[in-house]
Amino acid sequence: MWHSTYLQAVLQPDYVYASEHLLPHLFDALTAHALMLSQCEVEHAAEAAGHLRNLRKKPFPPYDPRIEDVFFTLDAALTDRDPAAAGALRTALSRNDLDMTIYRLSARMRLMRAISRILTLRQTILTLAEREVETIIVAYTHHQPAQPTTFAHYLTAVENNLARDTERMFGALGRLNLSPMGAVALGGTSFPINRTMTAELLAFDRPIENTYDAVSASDWQVELASIITITSTTLSRVLYDLLFWASRGLIVLPDGLVQGSSVMPQKRNPVALEHARTKFSKAIGMTQSIILSSHNVPFGDINDPGPDMQPSLHSMWQEFREGVELMTVSLASPRLNRDLWLLEAQHGESAVTELADAMTRHSGNGFRDAHARIKRLLSDLHAEERPLYTVTINDLEKHGIDLSEAELRSALDPAAFIARRTTLGGPAPQVMRGELRQAQGRLEQDTAQHAAATSRFMNARTHLEEGEQ
Amino acid sequence: MWHSTYLQAVLQPDYVYASEHLLPHLFDALTAHALMLSQCEVEHAAEAAGHLRNLRKKPFPPYDPRIEDVFFTLDAALTDRDPAAAGALRTALSRNDLDMTIYRLSARMRLMRAISRILTLRQTILTLAEREVETIIVAYTHHQPAQPTTFAHYLTAVENNLARDTERMFGALGRLNLSPMGAVALGGTSFPINRTMTAELLAFDRPIENTYDAVSASDWQVELASIITITSTTLSRVLYDLLFWASRGLIVLPDGLVQGSSVMPQKRNPVALEHARTKFSKAIGMTQSIILSSHNVPFGDINDPGPDMQPSLHSMWQEFREGVELMTVSLASPRLNRDLWLLEAQHGESAVTELADAMTRHSGNGFRDAHARIKRLLSDLHAEERPLYTVTINDLEKHGIDLSEAELRSALDPAAFIARRTTLGGPAPQVMRGELRQAQGRLEQDTAQHAAATSRFMNARTHLEEGEQ
Amino acid sequence: MWHSTYLQAVLQPDYVYASEHLLPHLFDALTAHALMLSQCEVEHAAEAAGHLRNLRKKPFPPYDPRIEDVFFTLDAALTDRDPAAAGALRTALSRNDLDMTIYRLSARMRLMRAISRILTLRQTILTLAEREVETIIVAYTHHQPAQPTTFAHYLTAVENNLARDTERMFGALGRLNLSPMGAVALGGTSFPINRTMTAELLAFDRPIENTYDAVSASDWQVELASIITITSTTLSRVLYDLLFWASRGLIVLPDGLVQGSSVMPQKRNPVALEHARTKFSKAIGMTQSIILSSHNVPFGDINDPGPDMQPSLHSMWQEFREGVELMTVSLASPRLNRDLWLLEAQHGESAVTELADAMTRHSGNGFRDAHARIKRLLSDLHAEERPLYTVTINDLEKHGIDLSEAELRSALDPAAFIARRTTLGGPAPQVMRGELRQAQGRLEQDTAQHAAATSRFMNARTHLEEGEQ
Amino acid sequence: MWHSTYLQAVLQPDYVYASEHLLPHLFDALTAHALMLSQCEVEHAAEAAGHLRNLRKKPFPPYDPRIEDVFFTLDAALTDRDPAAAGALRTALSRNDLDMTIYRLSARMRLMRAISRILTLRQTILTLAEREVETIIVAYTHHQPAQPTTFAHYLTAVENNLARDTERMFGALGRLNLSPMGAVALGGTSFPINRTMTAELLAFDRPIENTYDAVSASDWQVELASIITITSTTLSRVLYDLLFWASRGLIVLPDGLVQGSSVMPQKRNPVALEHARTKFSKAIGMTQSIILSSHNVPFGDINDPGPDMQPSLHSMWQEFREGVELMTVSLASPRLNRDLWLLEAQHGESAVTELADAMTRHSGNGFRDAHARIKRLLSDLHAEERPLYTVTINDLEKHGIDLSEAELRSALDPAAFIARRTTLGGPAPQVMRGELRQAQGRLEQDTAQHAAATSRFMNARTHLEEGEQ
Repeated sequence: MWHSTYLQAVLQPDYVYASEHLLPHLFDALTAHALMLSQCEVEHAAEAAGHLRNLRKKPFPPYDPRIEDVFFTLDAALTDRDPAAAGALRTALSRNDLDMTIYRLSARMRLMRAISRILTLRQTILTLAEREVETIIVAYTHHQPAQPTTFAHYLTAVENNLARDTERMFGALGRLNLSPMGAVALGGTSFPINRTMTAELLAFDRPIENTYDAVSASDWQVELASIITITSTTLSRVLYDLLFWASRGLIVLPDGLVQGSSVMPQKRNPVALEHARTKFSKAIGMTQSIILSSHNVPFGDINDPGPDMQPSLHSMWQEFREGVELMTVSLASPRLNRDLWLLEAQHGESAVTELADAMTRHSGNGFRDAHARIKRLLSDLHAEERPLYTVTINDLEKHGIDLSEAELRSALDPAAFIARRTTLGGPAPQVMRGELRQAQGRLEQDTAQHAAATSRFMNARTHLEEGEQ
Repeated sequence: MWHSTYLQAVLQPDYVYASEHLLPHLFDALTAHALMLSQCEVEHAAEAAGHLRNLRKKPFPPYDPRIEDVFFTLDAALTDRDPAAAGALRTALSRNDLDMTIYRLSARMRLMRAISRILTLRQTILTLAEREVETIIVAYTHHQPAQPTTFAHYLTAVENNLARDTERMFGALGRLNLSPMGAVALGGTSFPINRTMTAELLAFDRPIENTYDAVSASDWQVELASIITITSTTLSRVLYDLLFWASRGLIVLPDGLVQGSSVMPQKRNPVALEHARTKFSKAIGMTQSIILSSHNVPFGDINDPGPDMQPSLHSMWQEFREGVELMTVSLASPRLNRDLWLLEAQHGESAVTELADAMTRHSGNGFRDAHARIKRLLSDLHAEERPLYTVTINDLEKHGIDLSEAELRSALDPAAFIARRTTLGGPAPQVMRGELRQAQGRLEQDTAQHAAATSRFMNARTHLEEGEQ
Repeated sequence: MWHSTYLQAVLQPDYVYASEHLLPHLFDALTAHALMLSQCEVEHAAEAAGHLRNLRKKPFPPYDPRIEDVFFTLDAALTDRDPAAAGALRTALSRNDLDMTIYRLSARMRLMRAISRILTLRQTILTLAEREVETIIVAYTHHQPAQPTTFAHYLTAVENNLARDTERMFGALGRLNLSPMGAVALGGTSFPINRTMTAELLAFDRPIENTYDAVSASDWQVELASIITITSTTLSRVLYDLLFWASRGLIVLPDGLVQGSSVMPQKRNPVALEHARTKFSKAIGMTQSIILSSHNVPFGDINDPGPDMQPSLHSMWQEFREGVELMTVSLASPRLNRDLWLLEAQHGESAVTELADAMTRHSGNGFRDAHARIKRLLSDLHAEERPLYTVTINDLEKHGIDLSEAELRSALDPAAFIARRTTLGGPAPQVMRGELRQAQGRLEQDTAQHAAATSRFMNARTHLEEGEQ
Repeated sequence: MWHSTYLQAVLQPDYVYASEHLLPHLFDALTAHALMLSQCEVEHAAEAAGHLRNLRKKPFPPYDPRIEDVFFTLDAALTDRDPAAAGALRTALSRNDLDMTIYRLSARMRLMRAISRILTLRQTILTLAEREVETIIVAYTHHQPAQPTTFAHYLTAVENNLARDTERMFGALGRLNLSPMGAVALGGTSFPINRTMTAELLAFDRPIENTYDAVSASDWQVELASIITITSTTLSRVLYDLLFWASRGLIVLPDGLVQGSSVMPQKRNPVALEHARTKFSKAIGMTQSIILSSHNVPFGDINDPGPDMQPSLHSMWQEFREGVELMTVSLASPRLNRDLWLLEAQHGESAVTELADAMTRHSGNGFRDAHARIKRLLSDLHAEERPLYTVTINDLEKHGIDLSEAELRSALDPAAFIARRTTLGGPAPQVMRGELRQAQGRLEQDTAQHAAATSRFMNARTHLEEGEQ
């Protein structure tokens, strides 16, 4: 009946994907539809709901090339059992609204999972940050050592980013969790149905207001792709730093996350981080499939952002989730070479900003003047090939810098540098601890919101599977 | 001093871009910083604010290859006037936090403008929809005629999409409108400054909590890019339909929006729509520059999502705005060929779903059975090369379909088809009118929110420019 | 030993992918390496080749979480049989050069398959074009009817594009078909090996000249992605036209390539074309994963363009191939509504350019003047709501156009319009037939080149599998 | 006449872009067309050519909102001078074929310039490589020290990549350098013109065979975008390494290519490399605009890959060229910290592969056994916190490794490690010198090919500007 190329390239893989990933959502949507029809006094609809509850407990039939898709496979099974119920179920129903409903239910589940992974990563980062509030690192800007700060300061910045990502994810959930059911082909129906009831049964926030919109919109898919892109770019940047530190031995992954070489016996490659990077690259790449499938196509029911896009979304979520998981286990308890980091902070020039600050406070000539004098001082030291930590009061005097020995040493001490940075959001440990408490509070709120939504969605599922007990 | 290649490829174009697009934001940020320092009792800071207010009224110096950028150009001008004030202004200030502040202020303005264009397009669409509540069109699915509906139904679906886009834009505004000021290089400062005050002066919602985050984060840029992508893909789909209808003469653009041909005298090309399509393609393309500049780079202060990305963001906003404007003027008062559309609805087969619905109601044998009978009926008609509107009661009887002549004619009448679709969100005129009122109400709320934010941002600007009067 | 997350997210899926798709290439590469070592008089290497030939006939072991990958699984199997041979095989070998070799061998096979599909599509198009040399269509520009031409003219333009794509594919093959073997980790080895011999055994054109390049380069992957993008964008444009024609009933797909609707009994959706469109969107989307994995990563041996990218390449090839196949079967024998197309050509204004041409020849006042007069003539006709084909000699005279009745009718006749377009590359049937012969000739050359390469690669495989007989 | 939005968003910017960037190509194409018409005995065509030669010497009129574009501006100027010539020039000419010709001429020039920049970069790299044939670096794989090699080895690998890119560019040139002239709207013309002659006058290789293809194809644009993507991803990888080395002080840029900090006096940021990275990110991003403009649009004359895409192509070329230039000046004479690199090679474990190789040669037990023993040896040393260079014969004996003191020291000496790697393509200086000679030879061939094409294109231009002298 169908051309063999069409079967192999389209119908069979669609069936396989749907059987593996979409059946529970298909049963949910149809059961909700049947229950609603029954409330609207469509004859035999109540029986249809009952049959669906029974059928979902049976193994689903394998692919049969004579039947178009899982919907018609189920329709046939239902007709076998009870033609009247099967007929009733088709009232005010199209694969158009049904499919879009299933895809939204599936995406809702994936998004909830992704949020859960991000929440875990945030907790992992905050736990590590709490441990490393006093661990000194040298922050780089423009690929050069810039200033000493703490590992906790860096990590909390990352967590704060992820908190914003979580906010975006919940925002997307609100725009995604809307019911297409009852839109039928695109224009609703002449039967008196109750779209709000179906929406409630499926734990959607409400029906999508316009039925044309319900079967046509792909904005929610592109928004999900966007959220993956936003979070993935941020995490790719964090991975840059982690791999840079791993390259220099500042961070060492545990044995279970490294691989060796078949030819170089010394190798302990931080591959968990490297694979996480690629997974984010691939997740971002996958979003392009989603964007392109909604580009320059009709605004109406089509396959592009429909069945064809579901495996792409699946791969996108999977790469993303696995990337987050690999980062999470890598940050669970990395070994840090704190001494080496401290040495870099002490022996480099990254603390020199504080020397300028100290001089500014002392001289009253403004930071501009201090910056210029320090620059000349460094130039002299470089000419003599002397590291900054060898600088003396005498050297300072040559440049008209008037600080005491104690002031000089304190200015150049990375720990003192950090302790003085008590600005809102700065690295000074007492400030960081407050920030960490706030971050932890936000994380707990987000976790509670996620848990509430999860249980709402699971209760709806339980009711659709089993009815009132 | 700088290599000529570096001057030409980087410093000069950066200066030109900053002079044209960023100066007001630079003055705002520095003036707010000076006012804050002055409140924190930094000597000469108050004078710095005054000088800045004067300097911003003067023409800004043209590019001078000896000076690095607009910041140092202004620093030099300030030093000329008052070295102590210039020195004071540099306290607790870095180009790192300053630049990020300027870029956020600039993005805030662009985003507000984009929202404004979307609000106008939404109003244009709703106005047209109100006019066309009874205009019958044939909706296509999978590139084939599907069902009659109204132009208002289609248009409202599009507006509803744009309402969700507006919601996304306001969400992004909340995550964008945060102050980096006071983060200095990345770790804050040892001077006792007041970041909250600077944030308020600049009408930011609050300071970014973590100073490392403040100079490093690029999530807000990727979010802006994402919003452009989401809205642009939706609008590219709408353009597909508009151009399809224009191809068939169903929609005709006014003279001011068409172009002719140098060789084909008959041509009236709907180029405004075509150029709008490309502008969205280009806007989406530009977002890739933004994504790539935040991909696999360090999470810290770097040029990639900094100065280098501002012209890309500028182009992205411009293409997007112009695309929206071209759509808006095209939809302001297009000429519709309503007769041709009605003819298609009457002479095609798009109303046949209602025949099945009517039969279902009549026979009580369920929609499944009705669908199958109608399919056979159509097959017979096709064999005889008869259009559906020639169908008779006799034809129906052959397929066991038992409807009266009146029921048959009513089922096949597109207007009746639509009038019966009173489902929530359906095209029936009385339903549509309710939906349009709701949509209009939402639009007015969004417009009010936009106006409130605009006036808040403008008041902050006025105060920074002129001080209390 | 490995962390469970790492096993699940990386090692196991890599093993599964490699077992399904890469084993023949792994055996080929190792066997060639062993044969080369044996020629270079490494002891036990000849035995290693023999063992590999035997082992490849056995089922490959399923995944064992204690063993890193397929390489070490095979290494263990070999060691079980003959530790000395296993030890010898590891001489001057790293997974770095081995993996890159395997990925190139795999990509070579995929590219050859893709070329084969393109050759088939070209033949399908040329065959259809030959059939439709006199079928008149109306070509649209800027979404408006422009000029009559023939379906063959359109189709041959498409085939010519695909001929250029074939040229690009053969170009890529030349840059891909180079041997990394012998690069070992990156710097070659201190053993006296013969890289040229290994390259020849694997039917590579030659070794990659620089061993660092051999393990690092990803340009060939990005080139393959590019070729997919180039061809896919062209074919997405052709699909636009095919779907536009299908929408209007000008092209009708056979039953095996359409799908119906669960709610609209009249539907025959040209879904094969629609799915082809999405498959190209997805193929282009997949290329972004490949590009991103080579973006801002080290130039050296890393996982990003290595194992992690192979499944993405696989999906890219598959979507592309299936898209081409769906187009091929759709174009194998579509039903054309030639009468409807002819009617559009006769009743529209698309032939009016020829009227201007005729007038130019007649008047000697230049085309510019003719174009302007015709434009005024059309304007008058529109005002009277008269179609162009009702134009009379009188109408012409009013605009100072001096043509005989015969000249007028001939100018407006689409067939005559086309017959006159004998310009090099124009649609006149006798010109088209010549072009088609040339195109067929080029296609045969390309087919021969593809066949020669196929047999060269298969012979190498046979030799590695079985040795000299 | 045109809507103000259309003027501002489309017509005016198009005019500005065309005036700045396309006029020479417009004059060339029209002059060639006039000369061809004149040869084909079209009256007044010869005069048209003469007028064009005069007009191109005058300043081109500024934008006038009453005139559509530069073509009609020139048409008006010509009509002013000589209506008959102006009328003649319009024979067998459309903006469709004319525009596509101009875009190809412009792209040809840009591509030639890009090739020239790549040739210069290749020469810069080879010159540096020749200087650094004996400079030892530690090559990293998977972000960990892997093996010692030379800077020349790395650099030559990069140059070899760029040589393949050059090959791709010449390939694209061949497919780009084809003449659309004479395709007119799309179907050629009923006038007897000579497309081959026009092609020759414009130094195109030949006319595009099919006239529909001539005005429709966008494959050449996507190919140019692809080439930029391929080269840019490779160079982004090289920049990763250069910035990694710069971070660690191994490479230091000259003063003219670094920038300081307004707050951190010690900073010398390698910004030329950082900006180069962003420029490549932006170039790749721009290619997406080009791809999207050819995605899911009609295959026919449309604006998307036409006028609308030219500024995107312009930006793509410019970002790419400037990225290459910044890399070129950065690699012209960087300061290398050779001592630090050598120290890393001597004090790390990167040479240990050679220890395994030496042991393999000595023991006859195969590399597999040697690798395992060395791994255990390293494990013991790590337990004692001893660096590898402190290893003694005694240590070796404990692991059954039987080497003399001289053999041990030689195996661990990075210079000896490298000297032994004489494999084809390996880093041993004598091998490298041969490779460098070959690379230099290839570069000279490519340079000659580029020069020949340049002079051919310039001669055509001269003839069109000035005629035979």
